[in-house]
Amino acid sequence: MKPSLTITSESHAYPVYIHQGLRHSTYELIEQSLMKPASAYMIIADETVADLYLRDVLASFPDNRKPSVALVPSGEASKSLDKYEELLTKTLEARLDRQSVIIALGGGVTGDLAGFVAASYMRGIRFVQLPSTLLAHDSSVGGKTGINHPLGKNLIGAFHPPSAVVYDSEMLMTMPEKEWRSGFAEVVKHGFIADPPFLQWLQENVPSFSSCSLDTINELLKRSIAVKAKIVQEDEREQGVRAYLNFGHTLAHSIEAESGYGTITHGEAVAIGMVFALKLSEQVYDIDLQYADTIRYMESLGYHLSIPNQCDSHELLNRMKIDKKTHNQKVHYVLLKELGRPELVPVDDHVILQLLTGGVGNK
Amino acid sequence: MKPSLTITSESHAYPVYIHQGLRHSTYELIEQSLMKPASAYMIIADETVADLYLRDVLASFPDNRKPSVALVPSGEASKSLDKYEELLTKTLEARLDRQSVIIALGGGVTGDLAGFVAASYMRGIRFVQLPSTLLAHDSSVGGKTGINHPLGKNLIGAFHPPSAVVYDSEMLMTMPEKEWRSGFAEVVKHGFIADPPFLQWLQENVPSFSSCSLDTINELLKRSIAVKAKIVQEDEREQGVRAYLNFGHTLAHSIEAESGYGTITHGEAVAIGMVFALKLSEQVYDIDLQYADTIRYMESLGYHLSIPNQCDSHELLNRMKIDKKTHNQKVHYVLLKELGRPELVPVDDHVILQLLTGGVGNK
Repeated sequence: MKPSLTITSESHAYPVYIHQGLRHSTYELIEQSLMKPASAYMIIADETVADLYLRDVLASFPDNRKPSVALVPSGEASKSLDKYEELLTKTLEARLDRQSVIIALGGGVTGDLAGFVAASYMRGIRFVQLPSTLLAHDSSVGGKTGINHPLGKNLIGAFHPPSAVVYDSEMLMTMPEKEWRSGFAEVVKHGFIADPPFLQWLQENVPSFSSCSLDTINELLKRSIAVKAKIVQEDEREQGVRAYLNFGHTLAHSIEAESGYGTITHGEAVAIGMVFALKLSEQVYDIDLQYADTIRYMESLGYHLSIPNQCDSHELLNRMKIDKKTHNQKVHYVLLKELGRPELVPVDDHVILQLLTGGVGNK
Repeated sequence: MKPSLTITSESHAYPVYIHQGLRHSTYELIEQSLMKPASAYMIIADETVADLYLRDVLASFPDNRKPSVALVPSGEASKSLDKYEELLTKTLEARLDRQSVIIALGGGVTGDLAGFVAASYMRGIRFVQLPSTLLAHDSSVGGKTGINHPLGKNLIGAFHPPSAVVYDSEMLMTMPEKEWRSGFAEVVKHGFIADPPFLQWLQENVPSFSSCSLDTINELLKRSIAVKAKIVQEDEREQGVRAYLNFGHTLAHSIEAESGYGTITHGEAVAIGMVFALKLSEQVYDIDLQYADTIRYMESLGYHLSIPNQCDSHELLNRMKIDKKTHNQKVHYVLLKELGRPELVPVDDHVILQLLTGGVGNK
């Protein structure tokens, strides 16, 4: 099978395979992706995902090449130093060496955690992503891996691109609506920052999540990943244009933290953040971005686009100012000069505050 | 001041400054080495070294640029996951961002630990090495950073080359004789694998550790680091020739583990391992390497070159076989075809055992 996409990272190029049923060909696809053969495999899998799909993945391996397996509980809490150490111990006990390969089976949490284990085990071994959620289409490419510190998310980690991404779109069929909504916001984001015709395509082809065909999902994944791939290929280590991927995220991170993580999904917060960034763009550039139909479309998919009532405007602004991407105490916002043309712009506090208190989502 | 050496890594080139008194110019040398300015500094220092030199290092920084400081206890035990987490917390509390720089002041333990903190904090920030021991001349270049896992040394880590190495040779003057001997074995190793005339130079210029002038130390550091630099530039990630740096280390690691870490220094074990590797080379290639004068020289410096009595030959062999560098269960040994010409060669167990039981060091 030929890759749907090939992504070039600083250190190597890797294929992204997208199609239904690929979990049954995991072994074959990985083996054909590796430049040097793997001495052994270990699968790090989300418990919930493992219940559904681990058997199929394992069955794709020949008897003398069966991977060891380590399970991690679903949810953000698994991205901890304790779980990281536990997995390193299991990796050692499974006698993985420098020629071995770790396979991450699950969503973003599993990929980030397993990726950082691979990045730091014996100073770095290869790993492969088997994403099981739509949101993971975003995290599985680009090479960011990491875990959380009690003082903040993703503060410990490494850039360590995978050796392959094997995306079985059938796995998305068992995903709850809320998970769809979380991942789909990043799809819409990719349209806004780099591919406005894609926004139109989404409205025509994805009238609702439950009505999506596998062909549509495959196409959606491919187009959305292509946007991300183009940007990270240009700027893997986030010195420049990669910042555009944070469109909608500055406010989103603040909303997630203010509401308490888990109350609102990442993507739901990103959706609110994007609407805010669109309004801010119109104000800063004094333009009309013509995004009303996209907003209506997102609302029809069940997104709530106003800032949650419990979030205080001043607190949101304060949180923006301690974000990783803040320099010199001024919030740097990704704005759109026009649809598909992002810019990173320092914005004065009072402008943000005014718009925050003015309300969002009621265009 | 011009660098004594410049080393090219996969991601960037970095200067190595070698001279007496450089600690008084730390700030200036770091600032002129950085491609992009540092937003803030934090020093991670060995407690014992800090007592002697931290004040001088800090005094080199202007008042509005003083670094935060985190101290770590001397000794291998500091290369733990607990200490790693504690340092990440301190780094966060010091509000270091992606543009900040960590400075490692101490020997190999401090450099490895601080380097891995830098490698993984916010997915990697820059760091600078201020080595305080001779042994650290080996670990401070080449980009290996890492910590220990309860199941083995250096099993968790990253390749993360420093942005500069500032080597104040005056600091070596306060180093105990045992520390000299530990570091000097790596110097001799560099002579054996890549610069045989250097072995002659050492015998003429370093008749004893206490009689070394600063000029001699500077020259010694420069020549020894040059050998290492040449090899790691060719093979940063240890896929090929970098393995030559393990000359003497296969047996050394086994001796260190068998004797209990700390009983014998790393370099003392490496010295024994080198003599063993030289004998093994002569046997495998059926040659005469003419190293007797170097052996006598090392003995005059206080090295004990026989395998410690408490080490059982079969146990040593077993430990060699679980080493990181073992493939397919056969021990791969770095041997010398002639002085300065290393090769990586699989050696049969019975050949190793025979030589182990035959005794070493009594040529």
